[in-house]
Amino acid sequence: MSNETNSRGLPLAGIRVLDMSQYEAGAACTEVLAWLGADVVKVENPKGGDPGRRSYKDESDADSWYFLLFNANKKSITIDAKSPDGLALIKSLAAKADIFVENFAPGVIERLGLGPDVLREINPRLIYSQIKGFGRGSANEQTLAFDMIAQAAAGLTSITGFAGGPPVRLGVTLGDTGTGMLLAISILAALHRRANTGHGEHLHVAMQDAMLHYNRIGFSAQALRGKAAARVGNKLVSGANPPCGLYHCKPFGANDYICVYTSHNNPDHWRRVLEVIGRSDLIGDPRYSTHAARVEHEAEIDDLISTWAAHHDKYEAEKLLGSAGIPAGAVRDTQELHNDANFEQRGIMQWVDHPQRGRFKMPGWPVQHDGATTEIHAAPLLGENADAVLADWLGAGPNETAAEESQYEGDAKQ
Amino acid sequence: MSNETNSRGLPLAGIRVLDMSQYEAGAACTEVLAWLGADVVKVENPKGGDPGRRSYKDESDADSWYFLLFNANKKSITIDAKSPDGLALIKSLAAKADIFVENFAPGVIERLGLGPDVLREINPRLIYSQIKGFGRGSANEQTLAFDMIAQAAAGLTSITGFAGGPPVRLGVTLGDTGTGMLLAISILAALHRRANTGHGEHLHVAMQDAMLHYNRIGFSAQALRGKAAARVGNKLVSGANPPCGLYHCKPFGANDYICVYTSHNNPDHWRRVLEVIGRSDLIGDPRYSTHAARVEHEAEIDDLISTWAAHHDKYEAEKLLGSAGIPAGAVRDTQELHNDANFEQRGIMQWVDHPQRGRFKMPGWPVQHDGATTEIHAAPLLGENADAVLADWLGAGPNETAAEESQYEGDAKQ
Repeated sequence: MSNETNSRGLPLAGIRVLDMSQYEAGAACTEVLAWLGADVVKVENPKGGDPGRRSYKDESDADSWYFLLFNANKKSITIDAKSPDGLALIKSLAAKADIFVENFAPGVIERLGLGPDVLREINPRLIYSQIKGFGRGSANEQTLAFDMIAQAAAGLTSITGFAGGPPVRLGVTLGDTGTGMLLAISILAALHRRANTGHGEHLHVAMQDAMLHYNRIGFSAQALRGKAAARVGNKLVSGANPPCGLYHCKPFGANDYICVYTSHNNPDHWRRVLEVIGRSDLIGDPRYSTHAARVEHEAEIDDLISTWAAHHDKYEAEKLLGSAGIPAGAVRDTQELHNDANFEQRGIMQWVDHPQRGRFKMPGWPVQHDGATTEIHAAPLLGENADAVLADWLGAGPNETAAEESQYEGDAKQ
Repeated sequence: MSNETNSRGLPLAGIRVLDMSQYEAGAACTEVLAWLGADVVKVENPKGGDPGRRSYKDESDADSWYFLLFNANKKSITIDAKSPDGLALIKSLAAKADIFVENFAPGVIERLGLGPDVLREINPRLIYSQIKGFGRGSANEQTLAFDMIAQAAAGLTSITGFAGGPPVRLGVTLGDTGTGMLLAISILAALHRRANTGHGEHLHVAMQDAMLHYNRIGFSAQALRGKAAARVGNKLVSGANPPCGLYHCKPFGANDYICVYTSHNNPDHWRRVLEVIGRSDLIGDPRYSTHAARVEHEAEIDDLISTWAAHHDKYEAEKLLGSAGIPAGAVRDTQELHNDANFEQRGIMQWVDHPQRGRFKMPGWPVQHDGATTEIHAAPLLGENADAVLADWLGAGPNETAAEESQYEGDAKQ
C-alpha cells in the first residue's frame, strides 16, 4: 500500500490546524491538510460534536460513514465554546495554531466571540479561513446553503441532465468538497506567503462562488453562443463532437455503459473507432470524414457505436477501445470500485481500523508524492484526543490536563 | 472590483511555474497558481500551441473561449520541444523553475526527454507534477482519458440522473478541473516542504483516482448499505431527507426551479417550511413531525412544496424561503449568472481585455484573501511573452533573446 512517504516526512508536518468545521465543505478541507501531514485538531461541542457524526446514519451508535470518510487523520477534543472557560481554551489553542477553519452558518463564529478580528489579534500569524454558502455582499449572504443549493445557484444543475428534462443535481457533493478544495489551495498559498511576511491572513469563500469556478465549461459555452448553456445529456456542453457519449453494453444493467470520446484535435480517433467496431468499410466515407460531417450525422454515428457496444460487456468494450488508442472508459458503480483491488495496491483506497466500525476501506488522497500516497488513519471518536492535544499544543502535563478537561466538560453540561 | 491584494503582494509572488499543460486539467491547475501570483510560463509548440486554443471554437481566428477561461494570468512562449535547441531551452527554463506541470498523453513527456528524472537532475528543487487519465500500475495506465471518461470510470456518472434512467455525466468538467485542483493542493504542500528540506518532489495524479475523492458521498452510501449507490435524481444519494429537491416554479421554463433542502439535524427547518408555504395547520401533524415520518410521506411532502412553488417565480421562492431560515436557492443558468452584476461587484467575476476577443467577463479565483479576490488578466496570445520570459528567467538581453528566439523558431519549422 502506501509506504509513506519518504525520509523527509509528510509535506505539512509541523503545521497546526484548529478545525471548527462541520459536515463536509470545511471538513473535507481540513482532512486534506491532515492527510498531507498537518496536525488537525477538531474542536467539537460536547453535546454530540460535529453533526456530521450523525448524518445519513444507520441505527447503530457508531459515527456515520459520512463522518468517517471526511474526518480521517484528525484529532478530536470537545470544548463548549459557549462557556467562558471553553472560549478561553479555544483562544489558547488558536494562539498556537497556524490555520483556523470554520464553516458554521453566517454570523455564528462571530457571535461565539471567535471571529477573525479576535483570533487574528491573539495570533497575527493565523490563517483564518471561512466557508459560507453565499458571498458577503450578496443578496443571499444570510441564507443557509447545503451542497445541492450551491450547485443549483451556480448553474451546475442547469447544465446536467437531458434536453427537455428537468435540471439534475450532480450525484457527488461538489458544492461541499469542491469548495473545501479551493479553500485548501488558498490556505497553502497563504502559508507560503506567511513564510516571507510573518503575517497570516483572512480567507473567505462562498460555496456559490466556488461553484462558478467549476462551471467554467458552462461559461465558455455561454461566451461562445451568447446564451445560456443548455442540458445535453451525455454529450458535451461545449458542442457536438461525435462519437461522444455513453453506449449501452450487454447485459444492459443500470450501469452497463461504455463512455467513448474522440478528440476533435485528433482525426485518427475516428478511424480507430471504425476499425475497432468492425466498420473499416466506412473509413474515408464523406458522411463521416470531417468533424463537421460527423456533427451532421451524429445520430447515425451513435447507432453505429450502439450496435457494436450491445455485443460486448462494458469492460471488454473499454479494453478494445482503450488498447486501440481511443479515449474510453466503462461506467463503474461504487460497488465495482470498492471491489477493485487495484485501488488498494496503488494506495488510492486504503484500509483503516475504527474502534466502532472495525476495519473498512476508504479513498484517501489520490496524489502520489514521490511515488506513494499518504497513509490514512481512521477518524477520531468524539473527544478522543483531548489529553494529547492539550499536552502537545499547550504543554499541559497530565494533572493540569485533567483539571482543564474537567473544567470544560463541566461547562458543557450547563 | 478586486483591489488586490494588500501591501504584501500576491501569495505566490516570486514562484516560477514551467507550464507544459494543455486542455483543461493541467491548465486549470497552473491558472490557479497564476491567479495567486506565480509567474506561470506556458511552453507551447509553435504549430498552434495548446490544442485548447482551438477547442470548441467559433469560425474566428481568435483563441477559443475555452482557452481564455483556463489560461488567464499566464505567459506564453513557443518552443519546439522536438528540436535539440528547443529541448535545451526548455531545460534551461526548468533549471530556473520551482514547479513543472504537464498533462500529455502517457509517455509523451518522457519520450520528449523531459521526464521527471531528467528535469529533477537538472533542478533538484523542482516540483515535477503530472496528470494522467488512469493511475500508474492500473490496467488502463496507457488509456487516453478525457473529462467524461474520468467521471464515468470513477462512479460519478453512475450516481447522477434518475432511477430507471441512464447514468448522466456532470455537465461541468470535474474530471479535468477537479483533478487540477487536487494537484494544486499537493504542489503547494510540496512547496511548503521544500522550504524546510530544499528538495523538490515528483507528484503524479490520475483523473480516475482524483474523481474517487469527489465521489466520497457515493462511497459513504456504499458503506452504509453494502451495495452500489444508486441514482436518485434530485434527492440525496445518502438517503431520503424530505423536503429536499427541485420544485418547478412559474413560469415553468427549463430552469425555473427552486432547490429546497432541510437539515435532518435541525427539526426547525420543517416547521419553517410549513409556515412559508402557508400550511401552518400541518405543524405537529404526526404524518410529518419526525424525520422518519417525513421519509414515509415524501411524495405528499413533495406535492405540498410543488403546489406552493407553482405560485411563485424561483427568485421569489428563494427569497421567501431563505429569509425564513430555510436552506434554499434558485436554479440559475449561465446567462442569469453572467448578467448578475453582484459577482462583478464582489470580484468573483471580472472583466478582462483581450486583443482578439475584446472586453469580456469571466469567473476568477473565488477565495477572498484579506477581503479581496485577486485580479485577472487575459490569457496570452501564442508566444506573446517570449522576450520577457527569456529576459526574466534566463537574463538574456534583447540581442541574445533575439538570437535564441530565431533559433528555436527556425527549428519549429522543420
